[in-house]
Amino acid sequence: MNIPAYCEELGLKAQAASRALADVSGARRDDALRAIAAAIRANAQTLKRENKKDLEAGEANGLSSAMLDRLKIDDAGVEKIAKAVEEVAAQGDPLGAVLEGKVLPNGIKLQKLRVPIGVVLIIFESRPNVTSDAAALCLKSGNACVLRGGKEAVHSNKAIAKCVQEGLSKAGLDPNAVQLVETTDRAAVGELLRQEETIDLCIPRGGKSLIRAVVEQAHIPVIKHYNGICHTYVDGDCDEQMAVDLCVNGKTQRTGVCNATETILLHNDVVESGLAKKICDALVAKSCEIRGCEKTQAICSAAKAATEEDWGEEYLDLIVSIKIVDSIDEAIGHINQYGSKHTDAIVTTQIKAAEKFTKLVDTANAFVNCSTRFSDGGEYGLGAEIGISTDKLHSRGPMGAADLTTYKWVAYGDGQIRG
Amino acid sequence: MNIPAYCEELGLKAQAASRALADVSGARRDDALRAIAAAIRANAQTLKRENKKDLEAGEANGLSSAMLDRLKIDDAGVEKIAKAVEEVAAQGDPLGAVLEGKVLPNGIKLQKLRVPIGVVLIIFESRPNVTSDAAALCLKSGNACVLRGGKEAVHSNKAIAKCVQEGLSKAGLDPNAVQLVETTDRAAVGELLRQEETIDLCIPRGGKSLIRAVVEQAHIPVIKHYNGICHTYVDGDCDEQMAVDLCVNGKTQRTGVCNATETILLHNDVVESGLAKKICDALVAKSCEIRGCEKTQAICSAAKAATEEDWGEEYLDLIVSIKIVDSIDEAIGHINQYGSKHTDAIVTTQIKAAEKFTKLVDTANAFVNCSTRFSDGGEYGLGAEIGISTDKLHSRGPMGAADLTTYKWVAYGDGQIRG
Repeated sequence: MNIPAYCEELGLKAQAASRALADVSGARRDDALRAIAAAIRANAQTLKRENKKDLEAGEANGLSSAMLDRLKIDDAGVEKIAKAVEEVAAQGDPLGAVLEGKVLPNGIKLQKLRVPIGVVLIIFESRPNVTSDAAALCLKSGNACVLRGGKEAVHSNKAIAKCVQEGLSKAGLDPNAVQLVETTDRAAVGELLRQEETIDLCIPRGGKSLIRAVVEQAHIPVIKHYNGICHTYVDGDCDEQMAVDLCVNGKTQRTGVCNATETILLHNDVVESGLAKKICDALVAKSCEIRGCEKTQAICSAAKAATEEDWGEEYLDLIVSIKIVDSIDEAIGHINQYGSKHTDAIVTTQIKAAEKFTKLVDTANAFVNCSTRFSDGGEYGLGAEIGISTDKLHSRGPMGAADLTTYKWVAYGDGQIRG
Repeated sequence: MNIPAYCEELGLKAQAASRALADVSGARRDDALRAIAAAIRANAQTLKRENKKDLEAGEANGLSSAMLDRLKIDDAGVEKIAKAVEEVAAQGDPLGAVLEGKVLPNGIKLQKLRVPIGVVLIIFESRPNVTSDAAALCLKSGNACVLRGGKEAVHSNKAIAKCVQEGLSKAGLDPNAVQLVETTDRAAVGELLRQEETIDLCIPRGGKSLIRAVVEQAHIPVIKHYNGICHTYVDGDCDEQMAVDLCVNGKTQRTGVCNATETILLHNDVVESGLAKKICDALVAKSCEIRGCEKTQAICSAAKAATEEDWGEEYLDLIVSIKIVDSIDEAIGHINQYGSKHTDAIVTTQIKAAEKFTKLVDTANAFVNCSTRFSDGGEYGLGAEIGISTDKLHSRGPMGAADLTTYKWVAYGDGQIRG
């Protein structure tokens, strides 16, 4: 395969499909999504058969049981994949909104209209359902997409992509609106990231090393979804039970997710009041390992010593780092130094502390008196999400279908010329 | 000079300044802008003296008289520079707006607030006034900035940057909020573009080769301001005098600007009606050189033959390319192939044609019945502009101070945990 030529052609086909999509109504895009869901259900046997090839290869290559589990598509899995596409179809149309509008002094009627971005490249790892999830969100927002999945799921991804294209064709849309990259050669990623004439945006979904490799090679804009090193800071003035609940919920309700609390910062005052010990005990009671600063170790015998690395660690596990700080400023400074600009919460009764924290912590989601676990597109009412952006440009925090749009300025005059 | 260490330090200082700026009110930012304008006026003699060094070096290096003219700062120039900063101070505060707000079903109050981006790197060529213009827009929007100017204006840029820092200090703000890169070594650009931990955005202002070099090296987001290959398309059904006026105004009212019309597309029907000839004659009467397709040459004896290159050329001069097309679809296809996604206009009386054109032309500014010259931040009421983005991400079309902002999600709960 001539990879540069293949990637250029993928981009050109996607661009042609995206330009045709610009003239397709929301109702027709939703019809296509429902046709895709139907095709997924109709091809359940094929999906499971192809998925089995990936599972067998994965076992042979020694994938962990957790990874094999993420890879697996059984009957319930097929239904879940189809349903997720239908749920996107059921959301409101993100396109067509007038974001601003005014009549200029010269009489020109100026509007800022929400429109699709064009062509989105999604690079992802392991989970095959990303193939249909990402395709659905791109179609919902009027974009064509190029999908590049990981090699562990190559057969599953191909089978799902085939269903997607079948659905598109049945709905009368260009099947090239969703294209899966057919080679797992790494060179293809570099080539795709140079197609700035045809591809408008890349969203890498996966670990830090994948994202870094994309950023280093890309000539097209990238929206990064880095990991979540989320903090819960317990201020000196706070509701004690609430502080315990939010620390425990933030850390332990679900550990393998990016919005779980990874570091707890406790104001020195709550050491003196005994609250710090209560929080530690409640975490230990949930079998959570604590890695603490010296002061934390002094109040919690179960705590191990935290290393410098711990403050920048996304455990995704029943492990938490805890640090006692002397002030809210020290807490803010710590978060801005070690955090990943994802989600950070304060527990406080004080308006001034809440305002200072939300203003000065450089984060996508600044929470007061609620669990970091609420940082989520579904919870925010944005619908299914493509991920949680830790970038500041274009889209920040949970990204739904509306974040896969841009705008254009449309002006109507009646012959105005500039003097 | 150890360039990597120097650039890392620039980024760190800028980030510290930007974090302090997050707590500075709009009134204080405006005070600082007025102090900067005062410092520029107070240092008029120094500015002119330093500028003279650049002019002498430019003459010695054989810069064109047009370039020397752009470089020159005389008394009127000093006043213009100071006034531009004051005008930015007089604009409304782009920060503090609530972009969205809702109460979630669980009672959490969620708001999407407009906040500064953080640290903006601006890389620019020749005109020294960009130093103060860019600094003013960044400060207005609460951002720190790192400015890297061209070597032709090195003394002028340094002198202006000194005034900016003097003004910041007088207003009690961190002078590192605006830092000029002190070396003209090209290696510094590459290093700055890798400071992804501290620099949030790069805006290159200059020619295509500068922008391309930035895109190829950047590990941080870039908003590109490519050139303007703007089109005016005259549909079959149109007001004849309006069509003549808009073509002439779009092309000739000012030629050295990115929103000037560079290519005129004429529907075949207006050849038959004689309008095409009228348009050509009006352009020739304005001493405009025409480079046309065969049909254009047949109706206009003054027209030279257009080459393939002409369709992608930004003349910035009294030259226009003209093509006769058979349909609006051909016009749209031509613009999407050769245009630069900047500004494109249609002249038509037909609603359907206007809607099709504005929907299907992939451009930042789609105009109906007005001159392409209106694509401008000032005309749009956005205030002073940092440029016109030909990108689709984050900001598209004229970029004002508000486009140098992002948002953060702020949530207030009263102890909500996720079940």
